[in-house]
Amino acid sequence: MAKAKNVLFIMFDQLRWDYLSCYGHKHLHTPNIDRLASMGVRFTRAYIQSPICGSSRMSTYTGRYVNSHGATWNNVPLKVGEITMGDHLRDNGMSCWLVGKTHMKADAEGMRRLGLEPDSIIGARVAECGFDVFERDDGMLPEGPDGAYDPNGAKEYNKYLKAKGYDSDNPWHDYANSGLDDNGNVLSGWFLKNSTEAANIAEPDSETPYLTSRGMEFMEGHDGPWCCHLSYIKPHWPYIVPEPYASMYGPEHVQAPIRDESERENTHPVFKAFMGARVGEAFSRDDVRNAVIPAYMGLIKQVDDQMGRLFTWLEDTGRIQDTMIVLTSDHGDFLGDHWLGEKTFFHDSSTKVPLIIYDPSPEADATRGTVCDALVESIDLAPTFVDVAGGEPAYHILEGESLLPILHGETTDTQRDYVICEYDYSGSPIATKLKSSVQDATMFMIANKHWKLIHCEGGYRPILFDLENDPQELVDLGDSADHKAVIDDMYDKLFAWTRRQSQRFGISPEQLIKGRPKTSRLGVVIGAYEESDMDPDLITKYQGRKASDMKAGPKG
Amino acid sequence: MAKAKNVLFIMFDQLRWDYLSCYGHKHLHTPNIDRLASMGVRFTRAYIQSPICGSSRMSTYTGRYVNSHGATWNNVPLKVGEITMGDHLRDNGMSCWLVGKTHMKADAEGMRRLGLEPDSIIGARVAECGFDVFERDDGMLPEGPDGAYDPNGAKEYNKYLKAKGYDSDNPWHDYANSGLDDNGNVLSGWFLKNSTEAANIAEPDSETPYLTSRGMEFMEGHDGPWCCHLSYIKPHWPYIVPEPYASMYGPEHVQAPIRDESERENTHPVFKAFMGARVGEAFSRDDVRNAVIPAYMGLIKQVDDQMGRLFTWLEDTGRIQDTMIVLTSDHGDFLGDHWLGEKTFFHDSSTKVPLIIYDPSPEADATRGTVCDALVESIDLAPTFVDVAGGEPAYHILEGESLLPILHGETTDTQRDYVICEYDYSGSPIATKLKSSVQDATMFMIANKHWKLIHCEGGYRPILFDLENDPQELVDLGDSADHKAVIDDMYDKLFAWTRRQSQRFGISPEQLIKGRPKTSRLGVVIGAYEESDMDPDLITKYQGRKASDMKAGPKG
Repeated sequence: MAKAKNVLFIMFDQLRWDYLSCYGHKHLHTPNIDRLASMGVRFTRAYIQSPICGSSRMSTYTGRYVNSHGATWNNVPLKVGEITMGDHLRDNGMSCWLVGKTHMKADAEGMRRLGLEPDSIIGARVAECGFDVFERDDGMLPEGPDGAYDPNGAKEYNKYLKAKGYDSDNPWHDYANSGLDDNGNVLSGWFLKNSTEAANIAEPDSETPYLTSRGMEFMEGHDGPWCCHLSYIKPHWPYIVPEPYASMYGPEHVQAPIRDESERENTHPVFKAFMGARVGEAFSRDDVRNAVIPAYMGLIKQVDDQMGRLFTWLEDTGRIQDTMIVLTSDHGDFLGDHWLGEKTFFHDSSTKVPLIIYDPSPEADATRGTVCDALVESIDLAPTFVDVAGGEPAYHILEGESLLPILHGETTDTQRDYVICEYDYSGSPIATKLKSSVQDATMFMIANKHWKLIHCEGGYRPILFDLENDPQELVDLGDSADHKAVIDDMYDKLFAWTRRQSQRFGISPEQLIKGRPKTSRLGVVIGAYEESDMDPDLITKYQGRKASDMKAGPKG
Repeated sequence: MAKAKNVLFIMFDQLRWDYLSCYGHKHLHTPNIDRLASMGVRFTRAYIQSPICGSSRMSTYTGRYVNSHGATWNNVPLKVGEITMGDHLRDNGMSCWLVGKTHMKADAEGMRRLGLEPDSIIGARVAECGFDVFERDDGMLPEGPDGAYDPNGAKEYNKYLKAKGYDSDNPWHDYANSGLDDNGNVLSGWFLKNSTEAANIAEPDSETPYLTSRGMEFMEGHDGPWCCHLSYIKPHWPYIVPEPYASMYGPEHVQAPIRDESERENTHPVFKAFMGARVGEAFSRDDVRNAVIPAYMGLIKQVDDQMGRLFTWLEDTGRIQDTMIVLTSDHGDFLGDHWLGEKTFFHDSSTKVPLIIYDPSPEADATRGTVCDALVESIDLAPTFVDVAGGEPAYHILEGESLLPILHGETTDTQRDYVICEYDYSGSPIATKLKSSVQDATMFMIANKHWKLIHCEGGYRPILFDLENDPQELVDLGDSADHKAVIDDMYDKLFAWTRRQSQRFGISPEQLIKGRPKTSRLGVVIGAYEESDMDPDLITKYQGRKASDMKAGPKG
């Protein structure tokens, strides 16, 4: 094994941490991903920074908290001034390429202000979150008059489908994400009842194999060192999968939801509002879960098979020997847990993600196949990759920490005391329902290994879970008088976090410290009454100047 | 009177709020500035956002807190992505020009990353904090091997002096800021004992008249609407002034320092460290105060005379009728108050500044000559100017509030409950003395009309002043058990402030709210089990699609 030269950074979308057999799923066997875990380190407490695609990814791609970069929701632009994983890596001699999804929304107004053209190299990187684009595929091509979607969604993939003979204005929808009934009607995958159908597409043409092929094409054509962000859409909705995966799982394989009737009593008002969203109500129904979850499992099984194909290819080409492989997700999926659907709340079903890192270097031999329960955040990946590139992570910009010391067995834990996750629902109808102002429609989660506290702006009491004694997070202790000390302590930690200097990234701590001893020396002189107040071994430039050295001025 | 078309934004450097006769100074008569106050509104609780030139100004020029823009100290660059007063004003049809000082440090690394050339129009604006530069004059041209100063300091002014015959490599120092003894020795104004000397320069050639002339030259040559930032160096150190001002004041005019022996007992460790700086010890000496303060008063008297010259010129040219005049300072000067020198702490001597605004419009007639005790911050100026330009201040970017409603008598108060001031001493030797980490060497001040709380990172107790009963801030109640409720309340306010969404400025609240009703409609469909779950008056595009409408695909 050689030292890692490249990074293959694989991300899935909406893949729950516990829907892989190495993370304990009882019916879903994912031998290929499990094999990666046996070759690397599997993290059991990896948290994302926001339970929604765009914001989570912007944190991962900048190595910074949402509160620091400000892209608080899908389609909130990542501002032009933000520094990305790609910027850090290129500065350290590693290219950074995209194959797949980012959910990046370019800051068109900021680019206009700074005169950055989207078709220039720099402008394109700014518009694409710091990546050089091999293929951008955000997966979605929804239709309709007012959906908040990208008209260029699935652009290349749709071209591919059309070239393959899938004839339609939108084969992404009509074939890859829909079934077909006996009467020739398209059964849209947008509707959950159709999740029981097989997608009307030959399996090798569906999006997961397509993106796997594109990833291999990228790697074939590019010498390293590179970071390749192979970023899949699936198992994100629409929940529909082609055969043979469509028939693999049935209601008998659906694990019971993590929920309890008591969660619907005296529910925190914000939690209750999220429960009341259409998707929460839908996934609280058994018929919906039994229709959707087998398809979701089929999508993951397909993912795992594609990982097998990819890893075999990496072995055949020798890339396995010089490439770090990182496999993770941008967030989970409630699937009815806690009477919620989708991902936009803070239970582990959504905020915890699978994270497996394989490092080919001999230093990592000691940790192969091990499991690590350190508190990890997705913002740790950017500094880890800088570390792999041989650079010194710029920790005055990057808010995570390199995981290389863990991968190399030098330590078993990160240095942090807590993880942070944030959600901004000011752009959601839930804010209207709760009559929340745009300023107040935000929430913070802070968690360590024992406690998870959720703070909702707007004057609400907190939500508190005892992760040690209630790992399923079924009992909200937020109004428990017995837990006042814990709540105060978690709030103290959150307060300390909010006071961090997240924007002081124009200067490094080393520069600040280096500047210290000089400020009372020569140059600017502050507080010296006379020359003798100066450090005696410094000859001041202001002593011994003679007017006779200078020509006479108007007053001279 | 016509409506204000232009803004003349006058800033002095290190001018204490109480060193003007309209603010109550007993010996210093400033009739010209007082006259401006009689024509406009004089604010008595105007606070700056950081007690140091660069950071205070970056807040004023961006309309954002230091914690939001990250330029936490002198020479910490303002990052390329920040949006400035100039950007806001130009978007509203008003140009924005600089004549004088900004203390801007360009983000060279960010400009490199984004390919911004300093000699392009956009690059120059980014490098100059959003201003178009008529003249940049940061005033200082210190010499020596390691001073943290700009080698281009006083560049144009030095050229002017040389052309006038002040022959020296650095006439800024050798004439404008030094005296001369009978033996022809230059008596450097850097040394406080030399403050009793007259600067060796003809008064009309000194820096304050020079910049006044430059401001008039700008206004003569530019049609509006413009905002002209006429930004003086003085009365900032070096404390030395030419005749006749050098002889105007003596020790008999020096007001007693605001201090008490009790402040040096049980002193908060961080406060004590600042007291122990050379400049704190120097200004605790009567001989130093008696040498320096008369010169400081002379500098202010000269400032006032130049304001008289400027206002007369504005009247003669008619500009007084269509130009808002704003007069303020970037911070104060302790001058020995509280056993401190310089400005880097949070008592009113430093954090409160004079602020006088004259609005020529008839709407402002009702408030002429009035005094306003609203809690005002220097970040209010940018939105005020946008308001004058006829624009709608972008409050998702700008963190202050327009003062126009106060100026027009529509209200007597701002909407805020507190003001915030911040200081980062991680680049100062005081951090070394206190053994503070770079992360911990920061402080926050939060104040309302009754209380001022200072929080120092690093595990210290707070500092608390009762502004109502102890307006001189002589009694620190930070360890008073009787004040626990007040301290908790002020901390709650500070916590709420730190949780604000300061970086979500890529999208407006209006855009977020506008997006709300659409998210569950067409386009992206979330949580709909079947078509009938959709809003019935919306015909979904996903109904009634026929495979027969499409050519058969490979599976068809």
